[in-house]
Amino acid sequence: MTLLHEDRLLPVEPGLRTLARDLYTAVKDAPIVSPHGHTDPRWYAEDTPFPDPAQLLVTPDHYVFRMLHSQGVALEDLGVPRADGGVSETDGRKIWRLFGQNYHLFRATPSRIWLDHAFETVFGFTERLSAANADMYYDRISEALERPEMRPRALFERFNIEVIATTESPLDDLKWHRKIRESGWGGRVVTAYRPDPVVDPDFSGFASNVEEFCALGGQSSTSFAAYLDAHRDRRAYFASFGATSTDHGHATAATLNLDRAATEALYDKVLSGRADAAEREAFRAQMLTEMAKLSVEDGLVMQIHPGAARNHSGPVFERFGRDKGYDIPTRTDYVRALGPLLEAVGEETDLRVILFTLDESSYARELAPLAGVYPCLRLGPAWWFHDSFEGMWRYRQMTTETAGFYNTVGFNDDTRAYLSIPARHDVARRVDAGFLATLVATGRLTEEEAYEVIQDLAHRLARQAYKL
Amino acid sequence: MTLLHEDRLLPVEPGLRTLARDLYTAVKDAPIVSPHGHTDPRWYAEDTPFPDPAQLLVTPDHYVFRMLHSQGVALEDLGVPRADGGVSETDGRKIWRLFGQNYHLFRATPSRIWLDHAFETVFGFTERLSAANADMYYDRISEALERPEMRPRALFERFNIEVIATTESPLDDLKWHRKIRESGWGGRVVTAYRPDPVVDPDFSGFASNVEEFCALGGQSSTSFAAYLDAHRDRRAYFASFGATSTDHGHATAATLNLDRAATEALYDKVLSGRADAAEREAFRAQMLTEMAKLSVEDGLVMQIHPGAARNHSGPVFERFGRDKGYDIPTRTDYVRALGPLLEAVGEETDLRVILFTLDESSYARELAPLAGVYPCLRLGPAWWFHDSFEGMWRYRQMTTETAGFYNTVGFNDDTRAYLSIPARHDVARRVDAGFLATLVATGRLTEEEAYEVIQDLAHRLARQAYKL
Amino acid sequence: MTLLHEDRLLPVEPGLRTLARDLYTAVKDAPIVSPHGHTDPRWYAEDTPFPDPAQLLVTPDHYVFRMLHSQGVALEDLGVPRADGGVSETDGRKIWRLFGQNYHLFRATPSRIWLDHAFETVFGFTERLSAANADMYYDRISEALERPEMRPRALFERFNIEVIATTESPLDDLKWHRKIRESGWGGRVVTAYRPDPVVDPDFSGFASNVEEFCALGGQSSTSFAAYLDAHRDRRAYFASFGATSTDHGHATAATLNLDRAATEALYDKVLSGRADAAEREAFRAQMLTEMAKLSVEDGLVMQIHPGAARNHSGPVFERFGRDKGYDIPTRTDYVRALGPLLEAVGEETDLRVILFTLDESSYARELAPLAGVYPCLRLGPAWWFHDSFEGMWRYRQMTTETAGFYNTVGFNDDTRAYLSIPARHDVARRVDAGFLATLVATGRLTEEEAYEVIQDLAHRLARQAYKL
Repeated sequence: MTLLHEDRLLPVEPGLRTLARDLYTAVKDAPIVSPHGHTDPRWYAEDTPFPDPAQLLVTPDHYVFRMLHSQGVALEDLGVPRADGGVSETDGRKIWRLFGQNYHLFRATPSRIWLDHAFETVFGFTERLSAANADMYYDRISEALERPEMRPRALFERFNIEVIATTESPLDDLKWHRKIRESGWGGRVVTAYRPDPVVDPDFSGFASNVEEFCALGGQSSTSFAAYLDAHRDRRAYFASFGATSTDHGHATAATLNLDRAATEALYDKVLSGRADAAEREAFRAQMLTEMAKLSVEDGLVMQIHPGAARNHSGPVFERFGRDKGYDIPTRTDYVRALGPLLEAVGEETDLRVILFTLDESSYARELAPLAGVYPCLRLGPAWWFHDSFEGMWRYRQMTTETAGFYNTVGFNDDTRAYLSIPARHDVARRVDAGFLATLVATGRLTEEEAYEVIQDLAHRLARQAYKL
Repeated sequence: MTLLHEDRLLPVEPGLRTLARDLYTAVKDAPIVSPHGHTDPRWYAEDTPFPDPAQLLVTPDHYVFRMLHSQGVALEDLGVPRADGGVSETDGRKIWRLFGQNYHLFRATPSRIWLDHAFETVFGFTERLSAANADMYYDRISEALERPEMRPRALFERFNIEVIATTESPLDDLKWHRKIRESGWGGRVVTAYRPDPVVDPDFSGFASNVEEFCALGGQSSTSFAAYLDAHRDRRAYFASFGATSTDHGHATAATLNLDRAATEALYDKVLSGRADAAEREAFRAQMLTEMAKLSVEDGLVMQIHPGAARNHSGPVFERFGRDKGYDIPTRTDYVRALGPLLEAVGEETDLRVILFTLDESSYARELAPLAGVYPCLRLGPAWWFHDSFEGMWRYRQMTTETAGFYNTVGFNDDTRAYLSIPARHDVARRVDAGFLATLVATGRLTEEEAYEVIQDLAHRLARQAYKL
Repeated sequence: MTLLHEDRLLPVEPGLRTLARDLYTAVKDAPIVSPHGHTDPRWYAEDTPFPDPAQLLVTPDHYVFRMLHSQGVALEDLGVPRADGGVSETDGRKIWRLFGQNYHLFRATPSRIWLDHAFETVFGFTERLSAANADMYYDRISEALERPEMRPRALFERFNIEVIATTESPLDDLKWHRKIRESGWGGRVVTAYRPDPVVDPDFSGFASNVEEFCALGGQSSTSFAAYLDAHRDRRAYFASFGATSTDHGHATAATLNLDRAATEALYDKVLSGRADAAEREAFRAQMLTEMAKLSVEDGLVMQIHPGAARNHSGPVFERFGRDKGYDIPTRTDYVRALGPLLEAVGEETDLRVILFTLDESSYARELAPLAGVYPCLRLGPAWWFHDSFEGMWRYRQMTTETAGFYNTVGFNDDTRAYLSIPARHDVARRVDAGFLATLVATGRLTEEEAYEVIQDLAHRLARQAYKL
């Protein structure tokens, strides 16, 4: 018995499955190009062992603890740290047992696929996690984590990662990235510029963030021109640590293209703390366009990840803080929202803007039509809750006919769950193999083309779109 | 020749079909647990024969008469009663002939599946209804309805119904439920508390409904506190007739959590009849939160069925009244709308709120993510127009990966069409068998797990979610 | 080697494929009924050869040039005429080479299917277009276009077109239609009444259009009554050239039913040029209802094509004008928007209104429920970006269960790309054959019924719905 079905996620019809398996085999061992994600650069810098199994696989993974919590398990009991000073469980084994008892909740979810993949391929388990074997699992993983081949750099090599991007705040000094570089290790880890803390007036500590940010580049925060120069400066600093992209996680995709005087007035207002909700939204919107203009200047690829209602539960936010599984997708408009940015720089051939969505109804209606005409636009892969077997199929079915393959950018694992990275790329490669096999079997693509496109989707487009 | 294909609604690929058939067979004869529906308790209380075929199968079934009407058949000619005193057809045979002539309109619709199921399994027809055999059908059904085994209680037993819930207004005295109980008959028929007539200021007769409602519990309607107490009282009364749930059919999912003073002022305003549309909506929104708080107190499971634009055609409403097939789904927001309720009681582990939607675009975007984190939330099954083969597949494909199976609640037949109940559960079981077989064949679930989950989906989750 | 897979677009499972192929074969050679499209009546009137390959297949096809442009090819280099007097490429061979070099961009798109169909069946190519064979393609097509059998009328007959509708402005004198009629040629080419230039205050030249329009019927534009009479007159004129339908391409589906005085005031205001955006939208909305009322009078079938944000890029619009691939679908509401029109005339059995959408989320939620009850409503086929294999499957899967087949109207090719017409109908017939075969294999339809329905979908419903 094994945890993983050899032909998992491939089409069921035998002829299709054979072709899909062959296509998958062609990219199964291709290098992992990971242009967007949230692993911690400190791991690669220090290369120390990962802590206990619960700290590695349960407590930091919002997919995991949100599902357990949805069935009544308290977040404290899963070791999720309290932001309000309250007590959380620290006994990894206790947390792990809760996880084992409830592992059936993950049936048919992507988490189960990712976890089983790590359990089998990294730790050698062949029996599925349950209440009965939770202790055995805990012991075996604990033991394994002490071995040198389980350290971050060894796993990086074993996972065949060609390049991985992390995501940092402009306030970050990138010391871990510097340390990686200075260490002489050959792994390619690059950063990405995520300016939310200094462009979103609703970000906690915004005004002081901006002050600190401007100071970093020797600028004063009193003028918008200086603030923009600080961005220029900081983007160049990030680029010097390998960054080829920026990332923007606004609640909406709203953009604006105000004139300079209006922008300066808005900047002063949001810094003063007296801006109302509409003005704060306007500033975020204006800053997307400003960032796009800076991308025209410096060539950094721009990623826009809009549409999450963050921290939906006030009580949970007060207790546990951000990123606790309470970010819920919302309906997102792109057509009108992106208008001002596209009006300003949409025809620039030196600009590349990659769009993501949590609102699948926009795939065929808005995003594929937009990416299928604007030269600067590309479509990011299925994101977050949609980074799953069914989600990826819907993505291909709803975007390919209008945007084609070459307005998409390959796969993003977008994760801080290090052990899930190979699993996630494997899922994407299997789905794409199944999709391409279906196109061949229905006469929409030749077999020869499918063998070319599978390479594009598995790694080439990611390298190209992100200039890696 | 028969009307029903033995392997209907199962996947086509032979290997998949075999597994799906085996899974289906495991639950084919499982008891029917029907926690939400609209059958008439009087049927079970009086146990008299059903009237003629048209009165049983055409005139009261909005799915049936709306389709006939869409092709130009006048509602009057189908015997739909006029609300304005006009004349409608009363000759069942004439109505039935119209139905037979137009039966081809139902090709590929769920109504056809439900009707053919009843025609074959209840009445023994093997030839499909048409203009040519309409009289033969009419005669045979008429004849059958006179036989004792066609009476409501006999059918209840034959359908293997373990428990069925009806839905009553708080103004209902539950006399039919009392009569059922007093009759000594063993069938388990429970009520459900549907307070729309006394919480929705736009419901016809709202103010007098509230007065009558408060009086029922010996309360005056002059204070909001007394009104809430009347709810407490009436909910307990319903619970004493087996109710384990409440049901709320608002046009939107809006909720509010106003303070007591504001709520009292709003209550006075809506009772006065001087509230504007926004205030009436605010009262409905506030009442959803109040009902949730009462559910925390008394444990009744709360069902929210939002999103229908009721009585879309004014002229038809004037002529025929409510529920004439002119209720049209609309775009529904859940993320912002449910915020206040969830902020107030979302983390209560004693609360259970079951959400339904008519807007499938919210499945993957909003509802699965919400139900996949809030401990109080569960996701109701595919509803109304989506209670169909394709609708149920979309439901599973769009909700399972994020909410899992255990944040869903099994099947609801939600019908007043008594004869369709076994057919509807049969469809759900077949779709779930097909879905689970597909998961197994693509390595997302083991066969052993599938045999467990199919039991969960067919009856266990319904019992558990509704505390039946 | 050939370009076209014999069983393309049919289901993959062998049993299903066999049945689907048989169903497809039954309608493969059925006549083409094309009730809505944009071919140029001048072609049929003059019957002169088509110009060079690029002018025929690249430059006028927005699907083709938008995809090339999305990957950075300048529209000028594709010969797209500049509206601002700038220079565009005129060398067809150069344009064609660019097309050939980039033909891989169309992988898995409907354009590739349509183009390959024309390349193989019209020009006899067996090798796929590429940079390497672009010149060979260019030469062979150029040569072919000179032959008599490639002239518009010969192709019309070869394509087995029973009837085709073009679309004209009310300002059009229909001289080409007159010429066709007078020529004695037997091909049936009819017009359709598209009054956007005189009912949409945002249409360029609106006020002078209205003046010219009223003058055509000997009316003054100073009164709304005269303006309506001009419509009556012009609709009758169009009907005399075979028109059986009108077409309305508003940005939203908004309708209004104002009283006459308010309508007259609105008319005066929009003509004066002083109307604000809301008033201009109100006029469009009112005019949809006015057109519906005229359709009750004269029996012309009304088509509503809402939901495109036209000319999304200001800079591209200034450079190249309308219809340059920058029309992007937007979220569209039908339930509230169509309310006033349906309230006014929705129950008229002499009225037929065909609804289209670019917002697929409205299929199951709004459009199928509306078309499944209002006697005047029918559902148009999958439109524009959704006129594709995946798009048509989604259409059938999301509309059939609630609206049935008989509230739909068959296929529209809706194209100005003459050579793509047989390909488009072929795609629709294949998808429908696959869909019907799936219904049969899953017991939702008998084989006998499927053979009847495939004829309905391929041509009968189009004739019937459009009164052709």
